Amino acid sequence: MTRDPRYDILFEPVRIGPVTLRNRFYQVPHCNGLGSILPRGHAAMREVKAEGGWAAVCTEIMSIHPTSDSWPFAQVKLWDEHDVKSLAILTEAVHRHGALAGAELAHGGFAVANRYTREIPLAPSAIPNRRDPWQARAMDRADIRAYRGWHRRAALQARKAGFDIIYVYAADDLELLQFFLSRRRNHRGDEYGGSLENRVRLLREVIEDTKDAVGDSCAVAVRYTIDEFSGPDGLVSDGEGREIIEMLAELPDLWDVKVSPWAEDSLSSRFGPEGFQEPYHAIVKKLTTKPVVGVGRFTSPDTMVSQIKRGILDIIGAARPSIADPFLPRKIEEGRPEDIRECIGCNVCVSGYTSGAVIRCTQNPTMGEEYRRGWHPERVERKRSEAEILVVGAGPAGLECATVLGKRGYRVRLAEAGRELGGRVAAESRLPGLAAWIRVRDHRVQQLSKLPTVEIFRESRLSPEEIHEIGPDHVVIATSCAWRKDGVGRHNHRPIPGWDAASVFTPEDVMAGRALADPVILFDDDDYYLGGVLAEKLRRDGHRVMLITPSSLVSAWTQFTLEQEKIQKRLIELEVGIVANHNLARVGAGHVELACVFTDRIARHEAGSVVMVTARLPNDGLYHELMAAPDALGKAGIKSVTRIGDCLAPGMIAHAVYSGHRHARELDAPPAADLSFRPEPLDLSPL
Amino acid sequence: MTRDPRYDILFEPVRIGPVTLRNRFYQVPHCNGLGSILPRGHAAMREVKAEGGWAAVCTEIMSIHPTSDSWPFAQVKLWDEHDVKSLAILTEAVHRHGALAGAELAHGGFAVANRYTREIPLAPSAIPNRRDPWQARAMDRADIRAYRGWHRRAALQARKAGFDIIYVYAADDLELLQFFLSRRRNHRGDEYGGSLENRVRLLREVIEDTKDAVGDSCAVAVRYTIDEFSGPDGLVSDGEGREIIEMLAELPDLWDVKVSPWAEDSLSSRFGPEGFQEPYHAIVKKLTTKPVVGVGRFTSPDTMVSQIKRGILDIIGAARPSIADPFLPRKIEEGRPEDIRECIGCNVCVSGYTSGAVIRCTQNPTMGEEYRRGWHPERVERKRSEAEILVVGAGPAGLECATVLGKRGYRVRLAEAGRELGGRVAAESRLPGLAAWIRVRDHRVQQLSKLPTVEIFRESRLSPEEIHEIGPDHVVIATSCAWRKDGVGRHNHRPIPGWDAASVFTPEDVMAGRALADPVILFDDDDYYLGGVLAEKLRRDGHRVMLITPSSLVSAWTQFTLEQEKIQKRLIELEVGIVANHNLARVGAGHVELACVFTDRIARHEAGSVVMVTARLPNDGLYHELMAAPDALGKAGIKSVTRIGDCLAPGMIAHAVYSGHRHARELDAPPAADLSFRPEPLDLSPL
Repeated sequence: MTRDPRYDILFEPVRIGPVTLRNRFYQVPHCNGLGSILPRGHAAMREVKAEGGWAAVCTEIMSIHPTSDSWPFAQVKLWDEHDVKSLAILTEAVHRHGALAGAELAHGGFAVANRYTREIPLAPSAIPNRRDPWQARAMDRADIRAYRGWHRRAALQARKAGFDIIYVYAADDLELLQFFLSRRRNHRGDEYGGSLENRVRLLREVIEDTKDAVGDSCAVAVRYTIDEFSGPDGLVSDGEGREIIEMLAELPDLWDVKVSPWAEDSLSSRFGPEGFQEPYHAIVKKLTTKPVVGVGRFTSPDTMVSQIKRGILDIIGAARPSIADPFLPRKIEEGRPEDIRECIGCNVCVSGYTSGAVIRCTQNPTMGEEYRRGWHPERVERKRSEAEILVVGAGPAGLECATVLGKRGYRVRLAEAGRELGGRVAAESRLPGLAAWIRVRDHRVQQLSKLPTVEIFRESRLSPEEIHEIGPDHVVIATSCAWRKDGVGRHNHRPIPGWDAASVFTPEDVMAGRALADPVILFDDDDYYLGGVLAEKLRRDGHRVMLITPSSLVSAWTQFTLEQEKIQKRLIELEVGIVANHNLARVGAGHVELACVFTDRIARHEAGSVVMVTARLPNDGLYHELMAAPDALGKAGIKSVTRIGDCLAPGMIAHAVYSGHRHARELDAPPAADLSFRPEPLDLSPL
Repeated sequence: MTRDPRYDILFEPVRIGPVTLRNRFYQVPHCNGLGSILPRGHAAMREVKAEGGWAAVCTEIMSIHPTSDSWPFAQVKLWDEHDVKSLAILTEAVHRHGALAGAELAHGGFAVANRYTREIPLAPSAIPNRRDPWQARAMDRADIRAYRGWHRRAALQARKAGFDIIYVYAADDLELLQFFLSRRRNHRGDEYGGSLENRVRLLREVIEDTKDAVGDSCAVAVRYTIDEFSGPDGLVSDGEGREIIEMLAELPDLWDVKVSPWAEDSLSSRFGPEGFQEPYHAIVKKLTTKPVVGVGRFTSPDTMVSQIKRGILDIIGAARPSIADPFLPRKIEEGRPEDIRECIGCNVCVSGYTSGAVIRCTQNPTMGEEYRRGWHPERVERKRSEAEILVVGAGPAGLECATVLGKRGYRVRLAEAGRELGGRVAAESRLPGLAAWIRVRDHRVQQLSKLPTVEIFRESRLSPEEIHEIGPDHVVIATSCAWRKDGVGRHNHRPIPGWDAASVFTPEDVMAGRALADPVILFDDDDYYLGGVLAEKLRRDGHRVMLITPSSLVSAWTQFTLEQEKIQKRLIELEVGIVANHNLARVGAGHVELACVFTDRIARHEAGSVVMVTARLPNDGLYHELMAAPDALGKAGIKSVTRIGDCLAPGMIAHAVYSGHRHARELDAPPAADLSFRPEPLDLSPL
């Protein structure tokens, strides 16, 4: 296939300082939970993006000095010569595919706790560390000199490691240089504080230092927050945020402009659409002749072209879309944009870093697995046998499993009990704000349509006998799970007294539109998005709603997807009642009893109905029926029956997709060693 | 000096299975934030304990399989042969000093999230993972067989790595075997669930497997929770908790018995005294002839002797006391128990693991630094010059600095402005529950009394001129910090309007007993212990108190010291009002305005007085006065002026002690390389 000429503009080269981007696709820095602890994993993850057509592939935050240490959160660092060698693995991998490698040099200032190095955090002024009961100290002139020296040395080391683009970083409310810019953080009385010119001084010096050190051969990019979303005491895009760009307009080779804090920059699809940063980018292009890159969860090539043609951006930045589909540029280039695995904006990738996990993606189960499991986002091993597989259930796990098996060339029957494909994704994408999640289904259904060896059977609820009759070699059970009605979950090990009343409902009941009497008590012991989003739906449907949670926050786990504050704000503004720190002790007639999680004191609340969002039970009846009759399986020629996804262990959609993917990858594989992945060992030789 | 014969009993050898403890001092397993990522650091930390006289030194939780992965929290693991080699560094180090090495084999079941390996958590029944929106799956018989196989293999690998004591672990509400025991977690219908005998089956099998595999040469210890503190649906010491010991009484070689959850086992001194587990241990000794070890924050040799003579314990277990003083046994043996650096029970050590930091200790600043900085808890380098040092301020930092400088042989003058030594520790140890914290001062004052080159001057507030007159070679400024009255802190970058009213007070005002009008509004934007403890004090003094915090929990950071739930429970029971998720927006006449952190909506509360617990400012006036007159310094022969402790960067007491210690260690040292510590690099050779 050939490229649609409408998209030619996306493939024009762009010069940035002394280097040239081969096209306009640019993977901006993003965290990933791999960092310096897993350098081969990190390199392989970046490498597939270079292979997938991104013209530049950047690291995440790269600490330039032990006074900036995010331990135990994974980051790369550039503290010594060993780190140079470690990062050279990455640049070599990226260069193999003709992409440029970018290094996001960074110092976290007061925002890091230095839990590993125990060095004192640094800041423009003496202010508390963001996390720990420890304050940063105000940098004196010697400290500023030292910092500039570290940055210059790191720039030289980064070049030595093979990087082509060197970042000066002043963004995300995570960086020392940004803290110097901002009035609310910088209370200095010397030449680095006070007037805007003074507050900009350090950023200007560091850009100049970096250009002086490496500017002859590397592009110097500035990553910059134009609006801090914190009112006039911070940077605002119609005030100092803009003025700073004016002051430094022609100094860097590339402007990478965004908003902060991080939750505003990596806005989830629940809280904003594709291209949501356009009003901010639009300002920048008018102020500088240098190329401008920015992000906006771009997955549509038409949107990208529009951004460029309308003069909003020169270069299409992407973090999340490049995670969901490392081959996004290649797919446009090869004239098959319909194959793009579009980011759903769920921010599970972000939760990798924030919760201290290896990066994962709902849409792309190979993310983070490139090195350790050898998984490639676009290539799968050809089938090893002529086995035929029956996949039962077309939710995220079943769809993914059938797709990968089909790509491997296996003959697959995918049987879905209902009319609709997609399982929980189909249902949940109809909830407020979650429409983009349907992409999990739609991408797979689209891929399946191209796979000649996979057949889909709808409205095909299969009994064990019917499965015996079909007689595949392997049966894969992907029959999902069901929310418990009895309230058992994290805080209740036994059914909650009264749970079997007619006034008690499950999330499925709510999604099916069952009639609920007011006030609705929603008990959330799950802590992820569903409780909060169901409360929102019920309220929008006109109910009086009270959300009860044993946690101290609504949808507490969404802290890791950067959504928690937005969710709680929305519910408060919708006038959903919130009772945190309370367990549901009993469902009575017309009321519930709540127990304080600290004191066990009981409070009573009126209740017309109760919705339990606590835990799920696998729908594994079919699996157990099949396994209970091994003779029948043998007679039918069925060699294996395997559960995947929520039917095996209810989890996030990302877990289900991963589970289906892994099973499809490993079918017919030789038995795994004890470790099913390649570790990255320490050097244990005498030092 | 020779040992006091009263303590002879502590030095009797104890046979456990095929091996013999040289005395009754036993470092039970404890976490440390080093783990498999920092194996040399871990080994060196354990080694100093062996050198310090502990007869056994155990690891922390050692994962036996990738389905049990605590990433990013540091743990050791035994997954492959590389791990065997890594752990052999530790056993060799421990053996060098005649101690036995113990391996706490463990599987976290549903309590781990497997954020690194992405393997599905396992449990007796399908229940939610403790942290992540992901459920564990119910183990089937094949899973149980596999688990037993992993445990047996790990036992053999542990022996191969050189361990002498192999743990079967069923404690802390963190272990799969404990989850099988407990009715509330185990809802199985097969031979591993239901009756107590069935629920005990797996533990019995694993003990037998382990004895079969390594019992001929290694002791097999069982770490067991006799009471889960969760009522009759869990293990209780006068019920099933006790019955299980009866059932397995003679099976292990050693019983290591405790309570769970962890917050009850590692009870901070604020919430319980030395020996608090005695009622539980007392039960066990009656049920078995095998040796029993247990913990109780033991630091007094008399208490230890009493425990043994009264038949409570056979072996004195210690985690925290061995961290505060790795040489505790040696000091008793050498007849100098007064030199013991007693644990203060602050649980900052625990916060190393729980917050993802390298282990640290308020009392022992060398903890965690044994390998990477080469610090030994008892040895310091002899002085490198005849320099004389003036230390200004006798709080934790100044006392520690003077002590270490004195041990190095330097001539030191320690000048304290007041009559009392100890600085903030003296003041804070008078607050409810914090009495044991005075040990930070008392230990150092006792050590200083033995150091002939250190002189202490009380009531000696020094002016710059007086310092010039003294004319030391080096001046160390340890003049602490002061709490801000203006409310600036994490959430307020500018003074809070109204802060300068007469009704606004600082923590120092409260500690000094200033008269406060009711109701007292305590605004806590610090999040560690002080806000909560001042609220407690004020309430106990008879005030009406309301605690306001922008966090969702009271004293939120104390989650990491395992105290948060206890603090909030205590305040609720004392009838302290709590308004979480609110910032202090304004102090008015007779009222305050609070702003919701989510919506900025304003609420008004009556206020007689306001106490600000937000942030601190260094008392660095003296430092800056000295530095402003370099000529005068030169004329006085003063070569350096250095700030340490809170005067440099206000932090925890542990930070201040560390700061003073580090400065004393590094005085006259050759200039440090860029990295002031030894890293533990990855193997970057081609794999």
